Amino acid sequence: MSKLLIVGSVAFDAIETPFGKTDKILGGAAPFIALSASNFDISSAIVSVVGEDFPLEYFDLFKERNIDISAIEIVKGGKTFFWSGKYHNDLNSRDTLETQLNVLADFKPAVPDHYKDADIVMLGNLNPLVQLSVLDQLTTKPKLAILDTMNFWMEDAFIEDLRKVIARVDVITINDEEARQLSGEYSLVKAARAIEKMGPKYIVIKKGEHGALLFHNEQIFFAPALPLEEVFDPTGAGDTFAGGFSGYLTKTNDISFENMKKAIIHASNLASFSVEKFGTERMKNLNREEVQKRLQQFKELTQFEIELS
Amino acid sequence: MSKLLIVGSVAFDAIETPFGKTDKILGGAAPFIALSASNFDISSAIVSVVGEDFPLEYFDLFKERNIDISAIEIVKGGKTFFWSGKYHNDLNSRDTLETQLNVLADFKPAVPDHYKDADIVMLGNLNPLVQLSVLDQLTTKPKLAILDTMNFWMEDAFIEDLRKVIARVDVITINDEEARQLSGEYSLVKAARAIEKMGPKYIVIKKGEHGALLFHNEQIFFAPALPLEEVFDPTGAGDTFAGGFSGYLTKTNDISFENMKKAIIHASNLASFSVEKFGTERMKNLNREEVQKRLQQFKELTQFEIELS
Repeated sequence: MSKLLIVGSVAFDAIETPFGKTDKILGGAAPFIALSASNFDISSAIVSVVGEDFPLEYFDLFKERNIDISAIEIVKGGKTFFWSGKYHNDLNSRDTLETQLNVLADFKPAVPDHYKDADIVMLGNLNPLVQLSVLDQLTTKPKLAILDTMNFWMEDAFIEDLRKVIARVDVITINDEEARQLSGEYSLVKAARAIEKMGPKYIVIKKGEHGALLFHNEQIFFAPALPLEEVFDPTGAGDTFAGGFSGYLTKTNDISFENMKKAIIHASNLASFSVEKFGTERMKNLNREEVQKRLQQFKELTQFEIELS
Repeated sequence: MSKLLIVGSVAFDAIETPFGKTDKILGGAAPFIALSASNFDISSAIVSVVGEDFPLEYFDLFKERNIDISAIEIVKGGKTFFWSGKYHNDLNSRDTLETQLNVLADFKPAVPDHYKDADIVMLGNLNPLVQLSVLDQLTTKPKLAILDTMNFWMEDAFIEDLRKVIARVDVITINDEEARQLSGEYSLVKAARAIEKMGPKYIVIKKGEHGALLFHNEQIFFAPALPLEEVFDPTGAGDTFAGGFSGYLTKTNDISFENMKKAIIHASNLASFSVEKFGTERMKNLNREEVQKRLQQFKELTQFEIELS
């Protein structure tokens, strides 16, 4: 069975949307990535850190989905990373109300021996130095290293570290505004080309409700987001996308552009579920039939026949 | 040969974008619609009005593309409708600098006898009373009546007239913000459903650089905009889209949902050319090979193979 190594934050999130608010619930990049990737028949492990306040039931959730948690460090007396945010009415923007780094501040990742030869490595959003450390610990060059990051790490204090990670990965997934910030180009076509020069051979630009673009050399593929009646909570949609993308590629063990297209569709499909409930709620109870049914909807949404002459 | 009847403004536009500015050039909904539709082998006619200041060379342009201009009224001593606008740096929004209705203020459309049995009627953006008058003059119910409109007509002074037109057409094409305004729903899925209740069986929601959605009953189809290196001038892109959509349906004489999907792709394809130069400049010199080549790009951009189990 192919192996997917996931690094990313494990967090408590407190979320407020126009539809309601939550107390501290399970959040962070790694849970969303891992739960999403667990929809494929693969071996996966999370490298992360939590405090002693982290509920054991969450570990059970990971174990049930066959996610290896032996490399989630539990810091005695420590507190788990906490983020709290409030979405605006259109759900397209949000304010961060509070961030407590807690145990994440001094996190030194330790890749377990049995994942140092992982087939695919998914570097979830985190300090670029942590992402670099994970790459440094691998004993075998992975088939594919995928980086997800965000605008926070593009500020002066971190950009040099971020550039080092970018130079070492095969795929980068970022959103449209971040692609513009990183490249200094407004046109996403030009932005992708500029980012490709920084290292990654594949650029995935996530546009939220407007879909996602995959760039590779002169090729471009686009997947829409499924039009939904209601988006309830966008938190973790990008991570769920990254999990679907990396999970599908791990399962199929095929990193051709043609197969990456399929991975993008699977990623968009899984992300469309994630936003339907708070946090990881929807992803915990996702079944195979629901996933297949919505894949069919993706086909109907996008496929057409045109005769070219 | 199937007949397409087009009503819409014919105008002088003065445009300023981050890339440059123009003096008065050919603009208005009808020229963009007609030039776009002329890429298909159909008969088409424009119903509109201009002033005596309108250059004859523009008429030649229409004639060369086989567009019937006998129903473009020339008002003696009158001045042609004039619009001037300035785009913001992201090209997604613009300020209107000046609007002179001129001869458009008292326009009474006269559908020529040989187009009163048109197969398809494309009601370009205009005062809803003018659009209604065109529908009233038809002697045969058209196979399809398509309405394009904008937020201006959704204000209190015009909304009742607009609702009357909406109730009488088969297809409406509007942009996402207008769909939200008209329906009072933020979710585009819900907005489309609400607008369907107002009359049209097919709802096309244009999202500019983010593509277009076609809704019909429970079916949804999506076409992306082609990712471009540079958008030069978005003026008329929506009209060009409407022209491609109505032109293709006229040519094929098939108004099934499956064929409308193709029409949406052709529409998006033609709109992608329109934004590459100022005004109608790009559309005037478009050739068949360019169009076909870009259709192939649309296929590559969107088509994928996924096995469902």
